[in-house]
Amino acid sequence: MTTRLRVAIIGTGFMGRMHAHAWRTAPRFFDLSPAPEAALLVGSDAARTDAAAAAFGIPEASDDWRAAIARDDIDIVDICTPGHTHAEIALAALSAGKHVLCEKPLANDVADADRMAAAAEDAASRGIVSMCGFSYRRTPALSLAKRLIDDGRVGEIRHVRAQYLQDWLTNPDAPFTWRLDRDRAGSGALGDIGAHSIDTAQWLAGSAITGVSATLRTFVASRPRLDERVGLGGHGAPGAPHERVTVDDAAAFTATFENGALGVFEATRMAAGHRNANRIEINGDRGSIAFDFSFMNELQFHDAQLPAGEQGFRRIDATEPEHPYAGAWWPAGHGLGYEHLFTHQSVDFVRAIAGGTAPQPGFADAARVQRVLAAVEASAADESRYTAVEGARS
Amino acid sequence: MTTRLRVAIIGTGFMGRMHAHAWRTAPRFFDLSPAPEAALLVGSDAARTDAAAAAFGIPEASDDWRAAIARDDIDIVDICTPGHTHAEIALAALSAGKHVLCEKPLANDVADADRMAAAAEDAASRGIVSMCGFSYRRTPALSLAKRLIDDGRVGEIRHVRAQYLQDWLTNPDAPFTWRLDRDRAGSGALGDIGAHSIDTAQWLAGSAITGVSATLRTFVASRPRLDERVGLGGHGAPGAPHERVTVDDAAAFTATFENGALGVFEATRMAAGHRNANRIEINGDRGSIAFDFSFMNELQFHDAQLPAGEQGFRRIDATEPEHPYAGAWWPAGHGLGYEHLFTHQSVDFVRAIAGGTAPQPGFADAARVQRVLAAVEASAADESRYTAVEGARS
Amino acid sequence: MTTRLRVAIIGTGFMGRMHAHAWRTAPRFFDLSPAPEAALLVGSDAARTDAAAAAFGIPEASDDWRAAIARDDIDIVDICTPGHTHAEIALAALSAGKHVLCEKPLANDVADADRMAAAAEDAASRGIVSMCGFSYRRTPALSLAKRLIDDGRVGEIRHVRAQYLQDWLTNPDAPFTWRLDRDRAGSGALGDIGAHSIDTAQWLAGSAITGVSATLRTFVASRPRLDERVGLGGHGAPGAPHERVTVDDAAAFTATFENGALGVFEATRMAAGHRNANRIEINGDRGSIAFDFSFMNELQFHDAQLPAGEQGFRRIDATEPEHPYAGAWWPAGHGLGYEHLFTHQSVDFVRAIAGGTAPQPGFADAARVQRVLAAVEASAADESRYTAVEGARS
Amino acid sequence: MTTRLRVAIIGTGFMGRMHAHAWRTAPRFFDLSPAPEAALLVGSDAARTDAAAAAFGIPEASDDWRAAIARDDIDIVDICTPGHTHAEIALAALSAGKHVLCEKPLANDVADADRMAAAAEDAASRGIVSMCGFSYRRTPALSLAKRLIDDGRVGEIRHVRAQYLQDWLTNPDAPFTWRLDRDRAGSGALGDIGAHSIDTAQWLAGSAITGVSATLRTFVASRPRLDERVGLGGHGAPGAPHERVTVDDAAAFTATFENGALGVFEATRMAAGHRNANRIEINGDRGSIAFDFSFMNELQFHDAQLPAGEQGFRRIDATEPEHPYAGAWWPAGHGLGYEHLFTHQSVDFVRAIAGGTAPQPGFADAARVQRVLAAVEASAADESRYTAVEGARS
Repeated sequence: MTTRLRVAIIGTGFMGRMHAHAWRTAPRFFDLSPAPEAALLVGSDAARTDAAAAAFGIPEASDDWRAAIARDDIDIVDICTPGHTHAEIALAALSAGKHVLCEKPLANDVADADRMAAAAEDAASRGIVSMCGFSYRRTPALSLAKRLIDDGRVGEIRHVRAQYLQDWLTNPDAPFTWRLDRDRAGSGALGDIGAHSIDTAQWLAGSAITGVSATLRTFVASRPRLDERVGLGGHGAPGAPHERVTVDDAAAFTATFENGALGVFEATRMAAGHRNANRIEINGDRGSIAFDFSFMNELQFHDAQLPAGEQGFRRIDATEPEHPYAGAWWPAGHGLGYEHLFTHQSVDFVRAIAGGTAPQPGFADAARVQRVLAAVEASAADESRYTAVEGARS
Repeated sequence: MTTRLRVAIIGTGFMGRMHAHAWRTAPRFFDLSPAPEAALLVGSDAARTDAAAAAFGIPEASDDWRAAIARDDIDIVDICTPGHTHAEIALAALSAGKHVLCEKPLANDVADADRMAAAAEDAASRGIVSMCGFSYRRTPALSLAKRLIDDGRVGEIRHVRAQYLQDWLTNPDAPFTWRLDRDRAGSGALGDIGAHSIDTAQWLAGSAITGVSATLRTFVASRPRLDERVGLGGHGAPGAPHERVTVDDAAAFTATFENGALGVFEATRMAAGHRNANRIEINGDRGSIAFDFSFMNELQFHDAQLPAGEQGFRRIDATEPEHPYAGAWWPAGHGLGYEHLFTHQSVDFVRAIAGGTAPQPGFADAARVQRVLAAVEASAADESRYTAVEGARS
Repeated sequence: MTTRLRVAIIGTGFMGRMHAHAWRTAPRFFDLSPAPEAALLVGSDAARTDAAAAAFGIPEASDDWRAAIARDDIDIVDICTPGHTHAEIALAALSAGKHVLCEKPLANDVADADRMAAAAEDAASRGIVSMCGFSYRRTPALSLAKRLIDDGRVGEIRHVRAQYLQDWLTNPDAPFTWRLDRDRAGSGALGDIGAHSIDTAQWLAGSAITGVSATLRTFVASRPRLDERVGLGGHGAPGAPHERVTVDDAAAFTATFENGALGVFEATRMAAGHRNANRIEINGDRGSIAFDFSFMNELQFHDAQLPAGEQGFRRIDATEPEHPYAGAWWPAGHGLGYEHLFTHQSVDFVRAIAGGTAPQPGFADAARVQRVLAAVEASAADESRYTAVEGARS
Repeated sequence: MTTRLRVAIIGTGFMGRMHAHAWRTAPRFFDLSPAPEAALLVGSDAARTDAAAAAFGIPEASDDWRAAIARDDIDIVDICTPGHTHAEIALAALSAGKHVLCEKPLANDVADADRMAAAAEDAASRGIVSMCGFSYRRTPALSLAKRLIDDGRVGEIRHVRAQYLQDWLTNPDAPFTWRLDRDRAGSGALGDIGAHSIDTAQWLAGSAITGVSATLRTFVASRPRLDERVGLGGHGAPGAPHERVTVDDAAAFTATFENGALGVFEATRMAAGHRNANRIEINGDRGSIAFDFSFMNELQFHDAQLPAGEQGFRRIDATEPEHPYAGAWWPAGHGLGYEHLFTHQSVDFVRAIAGGTAPQPGFADAARVQRVLAAVEASAADESRYTAVEGARS
């Protein structure tokens, strides 16, 4: 191991920029030894990658990910490309002995995800660490929820209620993008944001989803091509030809957990007024927790063990030294933002490497999410019939 | 028609008391001609009914509902008994030419509900008015939501999201009651509170549910007999024998509406911390409305037609003269409570009689709710498979 | 004492109607012996009083309050007239041996208030009960706050922060009314709504205000006469002559409490968007409580004795059997409204009569509020200089 | 001007770390030309400064601020030291031709602040830029509030209501620190957090405070010396000797603005449950805005020009491309945190240098805050008498 952990980021889009910020920030606020540094940015287009490296503050750029993986001076491969490319890169990197952080979704199908999980397990026996970027787990308030649940404060879990509501497709004139094309995106709201809800739910509940009954919906069948003079936030060009939408706008499903809990999930890109309401609530026989990413620094906790007449949902501002991750930052009450999730992810990944432990969620956890997604699609295609999740104990 | 509308209330429980309050209050704040008066209370036990009449402030008591219906000086029969008795009483009352206000659920099964709806339709041709007591429709904030939706402010509806969360069964030691016995109660959370969500959703959306995919769950299979020294709020007696719970603790289902909207419904008595969270949200392509009965005087409205950068959910305090029902009460900002729903219901019922119009929801509307409940139970018994609602256009 | 407590309500306006409703409702939900009944309505105009009695459901009407007080069959005199008439009526009623419930403000000046308090004290020695209608004390959530504070859960009090925000004068074209005329109204926002804040604060803190530093403000110096075709909610008639506003639109003051707490008070009729935000928060060395009448069924409680990392403001839905007053009404989570304050006030007043106890707030408490109002006006007229409250121990 | 703007940060504490992060982050998300870089960290202790430079990621360290200022390769002097040192450093830096960013408070007294403002004005004529770090102005939600107010959406302002509530001194056993010593800290809650409220209020209202009526309070007169084994979050050592607290725990004052608005301000470190509730609300004759830093991404806006019956406070999630600063960051609905204020501050400062404009707030603005603080202290020492702010037009 070098005295620094040198990272190659694969991907020059929004996520690449975010990861670059996380690698840069992590060692400035957390005590990390060895400290990571983003050393190389890899993209498919040489000119664009050069520009991105300059913008992101990364010293070197390359348009050859295979060469990057082959380099001796790279310790971590950080995959920020679209989902359909993950398996090939991750398998090659693990095989080359690199630690791998892979953005979610792990893959676009179960077969790839399972192959990646198997490779990760094999690599782990050689001291190679891998993790999937379900970054919401790194929200301090949700980590506090996990702690309370693990401490028995919610008790036996009966209800898991997860909604991930966005609204960027509300307007029927919102333009077509690659995210609405099944060949490139895999699925729509389901895989993009519903996958976050599934991972968060299984993690918090400490229990796997064993079966689902699902429905998928595409409300707007085609959309105008993007007016490129306007940009993504704008509308399609007037009179522009339409493209067919081949993914879901919304997904809804009920779920059974191994521990007997009843789950209700909804993911949509058409909930007007909700820019990014990633919500989850869990009700047990001793209490409840509720979270909404619109208020990311807060955890709502209801303690049903308090005396009658004194109970109520309590808004815990998860920014205090006692709260996960929060002590490294500002004084209590000075909130964190979205990027902190990624910084915390980098911290946990580096510490797992340093400590020789397996970071969470591993590729196997992420593959379990993929199998739930597959069961959702299968149920939706079979009159919403209850469909067991492959490999889960029911 | 007499110069007063004389009401016989059938039922001496909590709902009987509430209706007595509503009949007494309505003419004091609304201009009603003729004014109603609760003239007679009918119960099954003579002594208990006498005591209840005194407590409720009703001048006369009887233990014979058939005799009450036969009286010439009774104009309105107000049915507040358990659901399995509704059909017999309502059919007799309609047949005797009485106006009938019947508490929800209209009946315990579809067959009874359909017979009642047919009888109500027949009676309507003779000027007899009937209505089912889905009282939440009379919340000013929800009436405002209905007005906004009907005015096109939400646009084409995509999502209906309804949760009715209670928590009085959270503790496994909460005692057994008749509400947990299928023979007497028909169903559990589904019919008791889920029925409210279904009625509200169909009413607000202006569209019927055409099919559902459902799951029901009983988390606690048996409960101790009530320790009568402690009362209902308490726990079962230590060592008391257990009774088997034969209804659902919770129900969850996705639904399709005639207008294409996707519904997600959840009703439960085990959501720790939610005493009575009756929530509904509707998202359309021009805006959204959201409501939670825990904040019954507020409507949240998102207007997606406002300029970008100025949008957001707006908390409308529905207590102003411009809002439905509210002008009859206090100055703006001085909130209403639960009983106002019943007073408004009495007002609307009396005005329908006076005006010769058909009040909403009629028995046919209530029968449509009953058919959705039946479809939910059928789907839950058939592996959650999508099940069409009988009689709905899909 | 008769077997019923017969009440004469003096005043045919909004408050008279509200009190009539309270007297009618109280014995239907609370066990009261003897039960009260509103027997007589008294107004200044015979025809209008007859009409009001019919509308309010009161059997008898009169236009002679002196005659009403002289009647043997009247037990309670309930004064709902404007403030400048209170003293004369109350003194006569007490002198005639009637129990007196007097709306707030007790009087328009300290001299009258003190005479009334002295007469009440004298009457009390003869078993005569009197109370001032600071109805907000009867909010279950605020009564719960009082219980928590008295139980030491807030600890030693440092901060009292009270705002009473309304907005009906926001628009400069809102018409002139008698409430804006000092001769008739005494003062503006200060005495009308600020008085509520002062009473609530002294009651909750269990401590009197000893001195204030104040400022008063009239933002709109004159307003158009009411266009009577439009009504109060409307604007002044275009081109209508203006009347001079001789009371405050807003009052703000800091205060010292006998127990050392620092108070900050604000009352205004020009806080756009706040219809009736009657808020108070108290911070002590063991916890805090916060309340906003816009959410009248909720108390926010912060328990600083909980473990670090688990603290937060807890929303207690004060509608449960364990909460003050709430057990008499609906199941938990089914909220109460504004009128319940008046029903509870009637209940407490009747029980004090039956039990021979002194109800709170007595006339002496109300006179203490009046002296704070006087100190506020004195300070505002003296460059906001700190001004001791007459009779308070500093 | 060099191709990079090289920054010397003076101060190795929490604020130094924060500024280092801001300089590092700004050019990664904003297009800045020339881009800034933190080149030198200056502290009083050589060893500690070396360690801090390594931790903060700054290449060079020094313990001689005068030498730093004298260097040709330094363009910006960024002062993050305690307030009593600001004047000397800032005056020297301006004199040396460096651009100066100075943390708030600008100084510990008016005389120093005025000298600094005069020097800044003089330097400006030579193209030297200076700014005071009232960072809350850079919150996107507050910048949106400013835009709405400037666009006339709030109308003529009547009320400014600002509270800055913290609770770290709630417990009487919280230990003594230098912040509680007047000689070192200048004042307590007033200057530390009340100063933020004053700056924000004057900025948003677009109007200066002309006079105040104030009270200051120290609730706990002495505190135990810190038990150094426990750290600042802990309590004083049992039996430790006490130090006398010579600053205010809380400040409260009413204020008059040049535009006639009435201000009510409160700043405290003893409001149990409020970690960092920096709140401001402004009410005008056309609308209101309200903000609480506990929910830093939200602006509450009430538009009183909307139709009656549709009005209400609207929660605007100020994270969209249309909102100030927000477009440079994440997709809408992905919140920002506390540090973004400092990054935005760096951006605005650099752009002012590049554009040759005067950044806000300049030293003159900050001196105006200082004069309000002085008036507050003078009023508090003079029986809360109304005290004009020196130099303000009344």
